[in-house]
Amino acid sequence: MTAENILPGTFERSAGRAANALRPVTITRNYTCHAEGSVLIEFGGTKVLCTASVEEKVPPHKRGSGEGWVTAEYGMLPRATHTRSDREAARGKQSGRTQEIQRLIGRSLRCVFDLSLLGERTIALDCDVLQADGGTRTAAITGAFVAASDAVSWLLAQGKIAQTPIKDAVAAISVGIVNGQPLLDLEYTEDAGCDTDMNVVMTAAGGMVELQGTAEGAAFSRVEMNALLDLAEKGIGELLAAQRQALGL
Amino acid sequence: MTAENILPGTFERSAGRAANALRPVTITRNYTCHAEGSVLIEFGGTKVLCTASVEEKVPPHKRGSGEGWVTAEYGMLPRATHTRSDREAARGKQSGRTQEIQRLIGRSLRCVFDLSLLGERTIALDCDVLQADGGTRTAAITGAFVAASDAVSWLLAQGKIAQTPIKDAVAAISVGIVNGQPLLDLEYTEDAGCDTDMNVVMTAAGGMVELQGTAEGAAFSRVEMNALLDLAEKGIGELLAAQRQALGL
Amino acid sequence: MTAENILPGTFERSAGRAANALRPVTITRNYTCHAEGSVLIEFGGTKVLCTASVEEKVPPHKRGSGEGWVTAEYGMLPRATHTRSDREAARGKQSGRTQEIQRLIGRSLRCVFDLSLLGERTIALDCDVLQADGGTRTAAITGAFVAASDAVSWLLAQGKIAQTPIKDAVAAISVGIVNGQPLLDLEYTEDAGCDTDMNVVMTAAGGMVELQGTAEGAAFSRVEMNALLDLAEKGIGELLAAQRQALGL
Amino acid sequence: MTAENILPGTFERSAGRAANALRPVTITRNYTCHAEGSVLIEFGGTKVLCTASVEEKVPPHKRGSGEGWVTAEYGMLPRATHTRSDREAARGKQSGRTQEIQRLIGRSLRCVFDLSLLGERTIALDCDVLQADGGTRTAAITGAFVAASDAVSWLLAQGKIAQTPIKDAVAAISVGIVNGQPLLDLEYTEDAGCDTDMNVVMTAAGGMVELQGTAEGAAFSRVEMNALLDLAEKGIGELLAAQRQALGL
Amino acid sequence: MTAENILPGTFERSAGRAANALRPVTITRNYTCHAEGSVLIEFGGTKVLCTASVEEKVPPHKRGSGEGWVTAEYGMLPRATHTRSDREAARGKQSGRTQEIQRLIGRSLRCVFDLSLLGERTIALDCDVLQADGGTRTAAITGAFVAASDAVSWLLAQGKIAQTPIKDAVAAISVGIVNGQPLLDLEYTEDAGCDTDMNVVMTAAGGMVELQGTAEGAAFSRVEMNALLDLAEKGIGELLAAQRQALGL
Amino acid sequence: MTAENILPGTFERSAGRAANALRPVTITRNYTCHAEGSVLIEFGGTKVLCTASVEEKVPPHKRGSGEGWVTAEYGMLPRATHTRSDREAARGKQSGRTQEIQRLIGRSLRCVFDLSLLGERTIALDCDVLQADGGTRTAAITGAFVAASDAVSWLLAQGKIAQTPIKDAVAAISVGIVNGQPLLDLEYTEDAGCDTDMNVVMTAAGGMVELQGTAEGAAFSRVEMNALLDLAEKGIGELLAAQRQALGL
Repeated sequence: MTAENILPGTFERSAGRAANALRPVTITRNYTCHAEGSVLIEFGGTKVLCTASVEEKVPPHKRGSGEGWVTAEYGMLPRATHTRSDREAARGKQSGRTQEIQRLIGRSLRCVFDLSLLGERTIALDCDVLQADGGTRTAAITGAFVAASDAVSWLLAQGKIAQTPIKDAVAAISVGIVNGQPLLDLEYTEDAGCDTDMNVVMTAAGGMVELQGTAEGAAFSRVEMNALLDLAEKGIGELLAAQRQALGL
Repeated sequence: MTAENILPGTFERSAGRAANALRPVTITRNYTCHAEGSVLIEFGGTKVLCTASVEEKVPPHKRGSGEGWVTAEYGMLPRATHTRSDREAARGKQSGRTQEIQRLIGRSLRCVFDLSLLGERTIALDCDVLQADGGTRTAAITGAFVAASDAVSWLLAQGKIAQTPIKDAVAAISVGIVNGQPLLDLEYTEDAGCDTDMNVVMTAAGGMVELQGTAEGAAFSRVEMNALLDLAEKGIGELLAAQRQALGL
Repeated sequence: MTAENILPGTFERSAGRAANALRPVTITRNYTCHAEGSVLIEFGGTKVLCTASVEEKVPPHKRGSGEGWVTAEYGMLPRATHTRSDREAARGKQSGRTQEIQRLIGRSLRCVFDLSLLGERTIALDCDVLQADGGTRTAAITGAFVAASDAVSWLLAQGKIAQTPIKDAVAAISVGIVNGQPLLDLEYTEDAGCDTDMNVVMTAAGGMVELQGTAEGAAFSRVEMNALLDLAEKGIGELLAAQRQALGL
Repeated sequence: MTAENILPGTFERSAGRAANALRPVTITRNYTCHAEGSVLIEFGGTKVLCTASVEEKVPPHKRGSGEGWVTAEYGMLPRATHTRSDREAARGKQSGRTQEIQRLIGRSLRCVFDLSLLGERTIALDCDVLQADGGTRTAAITGAFVAASDAVSWLLAQGKIAQTPIKDAVAAISVGIVNGQPLLDLEYTEDAGCDTDMNVVMTAAGGMVELQGTAEGAAFSRVEMNALLDLAEKGIGELLAAQRQALGL
Repeated sequence: MTAENILPGTFERSAGRAANALRPVTITRNYTCHAEGSVLIEFGGTKVLCTASVEEKVPPHKRGSGEGWVTAEYGMLPRATHTRSDREAARGKQSGRTQEIQRLIGRSLRCVFDLSLLGERTIALDCDVLQADGGTRTAAITGAFVAASDAVSWLLAQGKIAQTPIKDAVAAISVGIVNGQPLLDLEYTEDAGCDTDMNVVMTAAGGMVELQGTAEGAAFSRVEMNALLDLAEKGIGELLAAQRQALGL
Repeated sequence: MTAENILPGTFERSAGRAANALRPVTITRNYTCHAEGSVLIEFGGTKVLCTASVEEKVPPHKRGSGEGWVTAEYGMLPRATHTRSDREAARGKQSGRTQEIQRLIGRSLRCVFDLSLLGERTIALDCDVLQADGGTRTAAITGAFVAASDAVSWLLAQGKIAQTPIKDAVAAISVGIVNGQPLLDLEYTEDAGCDTDMNVVMTAAGGMVELQGTAEGAAFSRVEMNALLDLAEKGIGELLAAQRQALGL
């Protein structure tokens, strides 16, 4: 589906979804057994496995600082997508897109951590897409927060830290303009046909920590941007609630 | 657990498993939605996602031959294991172990394919370990056969081929000697403590297609090898039955 | 300089610059002699050489489409910065930051091109930072547009195309909040100490084509974001004027 | 030559060799002058230079353990083969086949070493194929043992160790079924035409340390496997004798 | 232009330059602001930015020696040349030509340094070609000496060293035979059409430190070589004078 | 041995060799059996295996030209040297030294070939050092010429070409100044202690095709250079005679 074959005013979302509705969100904790946090998050057909691993080491720029680090890596299984894509391990390098996404996840999570309370250790978040249908990076951030929370609980239970380093919750959603209409939580066919695509990362306290908007064809106005941010705020509110529910808070 | 701290005759398997018993085997078809074949296979705590992708192209050595190709890639999510391992895509190369395993999977599957009946196209098998507890390569082969069968059914249903290129079924299991005792289907702690470790790949017709035995400490005798092969034959028979049941045959 | 050692309300910009003032902007065309477009752009102490090369080929996904392509690469000389950084060619790979920036430049420029009017050829933009003092990516986008314009003029003069494929002008600027105060066009010390950092890319027609905001410490509000966008609009207006003047339009 | 064009019962080995005969084996010690052990081993037309280098360091997982390490690398000169193959150093990576072989050589040699008697140092075995005519990995293992023995003698003579860490001798041979007939020590044309191909590594004490069998077309039975192992045992016995003779034992 | 289309005796240099004349030489110090030495050197249309960075570390082979190190890296901006060449950072490796040149620059500069007087630190020279018209490596060596001298002055001014480690000045020039005629300081079109091409590196004391001559078509005689060296001596004398003038000596 | 511990006037070459004497030269043709040319060349303790492979393809820049290509690759077995060096295939890249040498060998050989008479095919020269004792690159060039001659004879015998493309013979030798004394054909200990080191490549017709001189400590004068070239001419004359004798000319 491309922008060209969507007639103005006639766009219908799959399953009769409203413009401002999220797809069904499912958060499954303890999806795998070895990691300190392991969460499968689903935004409709998008399924991302987020694990949080506690490692008793920090990268060079933090050594001796007494502070910890939170980092993320992102991957997509070769056939998570409609057509098979090359395995990055076999090609011998990560794509620019992959690096961009994993840097975004890492920054978003660090924003809600007080690294001095983590101690000189790392929480490594691995976000691997098992099935892709749009919004993988936003699902990854939202799921990674739950996995990181479980890893922090583990650290507290182990007595390795006395106080949580998590200052706030964080979640993310995509929004976009398709056929002139602002939509929340784009699925793949909507993403492929959109005019503007925006990823928004917000905390529970209500601030934005990352905002990335891209015009795919036509430029977008301040008015359109504000409509998108309104949608994003609504969606992120629901995601933060889903996180709290999954964590039993 | 190492071989040293296992007293002779006292080895007990977890969950009271008999020496000649498989762990519970689960085969879930259509685990993800895009691939022509998508199977989650579980050997106890080992969980491998096997997808089969049909690609209308062949590698250079098959171009113009009228024959197809079957190939495999293998990966492990960084936290599939007890401690996090480096992401191969980030390190920029696949380890020798990874390459060895994916070559083994590819050869094993090709053995049951008549490539001339596949037409000039490729079935690409991706075996990604979501959770590891020993035996990932044998689970991968066993699951990849089911995924490949589904991809062949899709090709037949699409009318792309008139006749199945699959000549026989194939499955694989690990066997080993732990504390002097031959065991079927080693889990991780058994594998780490074993004297000899063997991976056996067999077809439904009863022949071996791959046999890889390694002495981890002491060399092994022909007698021991035969005891291991007896166990393997029994286990593979059960795996072949599980495959048939999963495929509704 | 870090956010911590800036007292609220006391921040003074270097050279007495006003919060809403750009640094001096210089655009030098024909800076080197071989490229179809060659522009040195300076935002204060930031100096980026932008060349536009016409290549009579397109990447695989455009072959046979009759359409052209616009792409960008970004680099920084090892000692463009305060301390020497590793040469990416010697390390054998481009950093995630480099890839992120060059993807941003490419998308920004493609937004103002009608690729079907370019014909099946590529304009390759190379943006190399000779000296860095903050804002290298926004200077690169602003300078690359001038270089691309010169390459298009060359194509027209050569009779290779009959009509310009450039639909609009594009320019970019960074904005940020330092010590609670929104500032236009951050220089390095400001960037290092800012709470929020945003890069804005806009067209002459007034729309945004890229928007990337990052909270460095505290999250940012919609109100703050709007203040930043007001500054960005002002700055981009001035940059678009500087481009027109440089191009003699 | 392929399996198809060999009529049953008519296969004749080159030079009238019997099915259970090795090719002429030559072991030349001190083939080059710098290494602590340097052996040219020839299995007929297959010539492999095996050097053993003593290095006063160990890999990270052995540091501080008081134990040593034995490791191997394998390579093939580009024109060791019938047609030139790419130089792995120029391509920038070792093939999966190369890695598989060098891991096999390393494991085989470590099986006969008591690493605690070696002290915290490494014996690095380099096996480089000067000319290939089948069986390069088995020649490499057999020759590497002689080179390693010479390196151990050097360590003893230097007074660096007081007692040999070598517990047993090790050698290897390939066996296979060609045209229905089990054959010992396959040369290249036999290997290319075989139904089943097996590499067997055994110690002088009579146990197997590695066993790798692969069906190239048809699966193989337990009966066939036993016939192949009988051949392998005979051949390895002769190779162990040749090693002893070369070492003057 | 190739050797074939130059008629004997008719070769005319551009701008009426004499066979034994350098192109105009310009040396601009402090071309960029961060490096301890930063020099733009121009040999006619060839422009190379040479920076010298002081780093308080040495490579492994010098650690603990009390001695310093001088090293060089070379690069060419993708569109420094007539047609765009691939960016080495994007390709993931430096070409053989690049490595050859940067090794030459490093050796040439080390020849005039007393590394024991430098202390255990490194002067890293980065020579990046902004515009190429022949002779980039000789311009790089000549300019790198000036940048290194400025870095040494900085070290002296900072009190980090008490005495200059620079023993002599060094400069370099290319010479060649075009159409049978020995020429000094080849520009690109001359270089492309020459029979013999020689790069000569000399010190102010009059000795040669590097000499690299290559016959491009026909071999060259001792007589021709001596004619070329006479030209080179003259040219290097003038370059050494230009260096002294730039440095105010 | 370093330059410092050689007292002036007391330098004695090993085995009482005269300053102007080559080490014993041995050229063994048909050293391995698969290549069209295969030569082991020995300069004293330096042993290089040079193979020439005929390939019915040319690199991109020669496709469709009707002309052929001659290229070279160089490698050193890890333990060809006194201490083991890393395997370049395992490290994943060729060193700058390796690339410099193989480019030199390629250029030297192409100088004596009329590529238009070779037809659109490549002669690939692989020069692999089995044992190193100084002068490996000059031995490689001298041996590669003999291997290339054998490959050309094979092409003529096969009727693939009607006329030899070889225009002249080529050989190479190192010369250097040790302890003030010019010496021919440096062995490793001399090379390590020399003041100046020069590699000279000449044709039978008497011209130089490559000349690479490097001052290791002190600069060298024209007088010294001429003394070195006199020695080189003498040595190369003897090498050319050894080539002719090996080829039965």
